[in-house]
Amino acid sequence: MSSPPTRPVLRARYERRRAEVVAAAARTFAQRGYHGTSIDDLIAATGLTRGGLYHYMDGKEALLIAVLDELMDPLLARTRAILDGPATPEDHLRALTRAWLEHIATHRDHMVVFNQERRTLERDPAWKHIRAARRDFERLLGGVLQRGVEAGAFRTTDPQLTLLALLGMANYTAQWYAPRGRLSAEQIADRYVDLLLDGIRA
Amino acid sequence: MSSPPTRPVLRARYERRRAEVVAAAARTFAQRGYHGTSIDDLIAATGLTRGGLYHYMDGKEALLIAVLDELMDPLLARTRAILDGPATPEDHLRALTRAWLEHIATHRDHMVVFNQERRTLERDPAWKHIRAARRDFERLLGGVLQRGVEAGAFRTTDPQLTLLALLGMANYTAQWYAPRGRLSAEQIADRYVDLLLDGIRA
Repeated sequence: MSSPPTRPVLRARYERRRAEVVAAAARTFAQRGYHGTSIDDLIAATGLTRGGLYHYMDGKEALLIAVLDELMDPLLARTRAILDGPATPEDHLRALTRAWLEHIATHRDHMVVFNQERRTLERDPAWKHIRAARRDFERLLGGVLQRGVEAGAFRTTDPQLTLLALLGMANYTAQWYAPRGRLSAEQIADRYVDLLLDGIRA
Repeated sequence: MSSPPTRPVLRARYERRRAEVVAAAARTFAQRGYHGTSIDDLIAATGLTRGGLYHYMDGKEALLIAVLDELMDPLLARTRAILDGPATPEDHLRALTRAWLEHIATHRDHMVVFNQERRTLERDPAWKHIRAARRDFERLLGGVLQRGVEAGAFRTTDPQLTLLALLGMANYTAQWYAPRGRLSAEQIADRYVDLLLDGIRA
């Protein structure tokens, strides 16, 4: 991998091209699996030469890490920004679920890769910071549920399991969400929060 | 693949050994991804020779299909048996979610493979019957929600999204369930059904 150029106009072009390379890698990993993707597959997907590819990225594992960073870092930043603002636990939960589902909707390939590689992710020391980002996000989300219980707004005997239920519902949208489907990411988020709060008992 | 032996004692031994081969394939696919698994990986995982492996199975794709059949067929049979019995929609929902989570708990590798290969599954004509089994299961589960709404037991303006929420919650347990963990599959099922019915609003 070369150092990025320093002149702003070249730097911007480099960053844009690098983002395209990461997006193409996400798509290819999602389709073929990380282990099933060869450097030749990545060359075909990016339209670059081998040398061109290595200009942007130090090989396959670096691309996987870039894909997972692109998934976790903005989500975590957005989550922290939302929780920095004052709001009721219900409003925090709703704003956070909206931001999360909107992020999933625009990063479906990234999510498929994240779910596929999850077992490796839990073991490999190279991915410690991605594991930490996932834990931070879950801790922040769990904190909203916990504060809701303490404030008397939510009642749940098992906040940890409620958190796992919400993680499951939201993560699964990456499998079925269609950009031109019946519901927007925001509508799905709102209905999921309503479901979690009120259930379906008549 | 040879024909199975006809003498009962040999036949039983063949079936037992074949089941071990499928379990080893599920474990290997779950760890390395289907595309990332070579025939050599499967030979190493089963402890068989190449010839021995082909005695039980016609190669990698046949093994993948066997793994997914082992996941879907018993689940679908159990679901149909449950729904054949008379019960309220709530009792059907609870019995079905219990059976489903107990099946996931004993087939975690199978579930990981199913989730990993889901995109291919939706496209490849060879897997039409697995796609049909998944749809049948979702249709039966959706039918329980629908009957609950018609009977006035459940209220939901969007049964399809409620079904997707439940599918997400349940499927995700394959990622985190631990056989010696705090909660049994039955306890998780019961708490998920309670959550879905009553929500967490105080």
